[in-house]
Amino acid sequence: MPTNSEAQDLYPSRGGAAATLAPRLDPVVHAPAERAPPVARQLIQAYERRGFLILQALFNDTELAAMQVELERLRNDPLLAQRPEAIRERETGALRTVFRVHRLSPLFAAVAADPRLVELARYLLDDEVYIHQSRLNYKPGFGGKEFYWHSDFETWHVEDGMPRMRALSISISLTRNHAHNGPLLLLPGSHRSYVVCTGDTPADHYQQSLVKQEYGVPSDDCLRQLAEQSGGIAAAIGPPGTTTVFDCNVMHGSNGNITPDPRSNVFFVYNAVSNGLREPYCGRPPRPGFIATRGSIQPLIPAPLELAARS
Amino acid sequence: MPTNSEAQDLYPSRGGAAATLAPRLDPVVHAPAERAPPVARQLIQAYERRGFLILQALFNDTELAAMQVELERLRNDPLLAQRPEAIRERETGALRTVFRVHRLSPLFAAVAADPRLVELARYLLDDEVYIHQSRLNYKPGFGGKEFYWHSDFETWHVEDGMPRMRALSISISLTRNHAHNGPLLLLPGSHRSYVVCTGDTPADHYQQSLVKQEYGVPSDDCLRQLAEQSGGIAAAIGPPGTTTVFDCNVMHGSNGNITPDPRSNVFFVYNAVSNGLREPYCGRPPRPGFIATRGSIQPLIPAPLELAARS
Repeated sequence: MPTNSEAQDLYPSRGGAAATLAPRLDPVVHAPAERAPPVARQLIQAYERRGFLILQALFNDTELAAMQVELERLRNDPLLAQRPEAIRERETGALRTVFRVHRLSPLFAAVAADPRLVELARYLLDDEVYIHQSRLNYKPGFGGKEFYWHSDFETWHVEDGMPRMRALSISISLTRNHAHNGPLLLLPGSHRSYVVCTGDTPADHYQQSLVKQEYGVPSDDCLRQLAEQSGGIAAAIGPPGTTTVFDCNVMHGSNGNITPDPRSNVFFVYNAVSNGLREPYCGRPPRPGFIATRGSIQPLIPAPLELAARS
Repeated sequence: MPTNSEAQDLYPSRGGAAATLAPRLDPVVHAPAERAPPVARQLIQAYERRGFLILQALFNDTELAAMQVELERLRNDPLLAQRPEAIRERETGALRTVFRVHRLSPLFAAVAADPRLVELARYLLDDEVYIHQSRLNYKPGFGGKEFYWHSDFETWHVEDGMPRMRALSISISLTRNHAHNGPLLLLPGSHRSYVVCTGDTPADHYQQSLVKQEYGVPSDDCLRQLAEQSGGIAAAIGPPGTTTVFDCNVMHGSNGNITPDPRSNVFFVYNAVSNGLREPYCGRPPRPGFIATRGSIQPLIPAPLELAARS
């Protein structure tokens, strides 16, 4: 694994840093301008400007139904529930998140490799890609918890040693997202600033941070600035199958959910193979491999999702 | 104070009751059909059907600005902060609620008595009215807490001894309410069912329940039924001054608020003088007078808000 010297940390945060907005040093769309994108160019322009794009009806009903069945199968798998990849609610014990679902589920492995996702990731990152992290999120109704504002990249950089902003997330909703069941909220344009956070990184921080964030939390002032520049908070709202593609550094979060309507999604993080992990910049040992893939990395080979062949 | 016999409790809840939806035994609009309402009749019909109505621009800009100034004045009043009426956030100590604001603030006393509110309350309740409870709510941005689903009447009946459903609330927003800063959510039509709750009522429950609800909480099954019948959750969204009038038994709550935008409102509960409090139906001592007015009750005398005369 490559080691880091002090000079190589282009995005310092925590460990004595003062809260501020620093400039982004990396492109948002890495592909050269002349290359034809795999989706409409207006979508790519919106992604560059806002830091995310939303695709409806990317998957057909059969594909979506298969994902929903798999979601329930995994929820009820007693052996899976004992694995470290399964994260439970602190108060109720209910399953909240399953990590590394692109390895634990053949169906979600196939979804992660589908060209509709991989080709978009390869274009935006202008590189071969691999899965840095994947997860299935179960957000129950009747009191699902909030997830406070954060930039994924800040965590992946500080705690995982991801050197540059050359990664993105794709979230596929498996339930309906409406305004009041805790949809993904994003601050458009926030991906252009790096929010330096105060505080330190405690040992084994990830075990707490998956349930409740306490470090890597942006200051109120930084959030207020980003919100003012944003022209208004955006929400990823839509029917099951709504697919949100967002830059690794866009500021996002979600409110809690008192409605009866659960909110589940599957979530893949694609990283450029040239942007593989180094040692964590916080100086702590790396987080487990099921949260942040490291070691010998194989580029994803795009392969169309073939449901018939699977039954 | 009138005493209760077992036979008089028309709306039993807690104390061994099983969770269920019971029928409402009282009218929603108490005025006779032929009486001319003080607002458009369609609004009254919507109130009867849905359990609430929303009025925009009921107050002019001068009046609204005066309320906003008063909101800040009270927030910064060090003597007020020491009074029992001032309720603070458990974690941060920030002011969350000021009760009995119709007595503690001359301005809000005048707002409570304004004919635009009082005449509507007198019409809907078909009686002289008085203020059962009033409060100023400060819901901060950056993590304001949720308020779980509840019927106010269930609490007022069980803990305060309000005999019948002949009361209503009027909430005037003093900040902008949008979909994501924890607006008031309502289940349309839920006011026609009485949600019987399980559990007991601990002594001095109100001290906890103002910060976190644990009793008088509807079951998931009851909420699911009400949500299915509702045709969709409604949200009280709008600019400052948006005025929501809602029946004492409509199921409502609010999500938390991670956005930077605070959400403050002033809130008056009007009760029919013929529906004055008896002993609490839970058998516990009554809650303090600043939460539930009892004793010798004087009907409100409507008096137009006169800001010029006050300066």
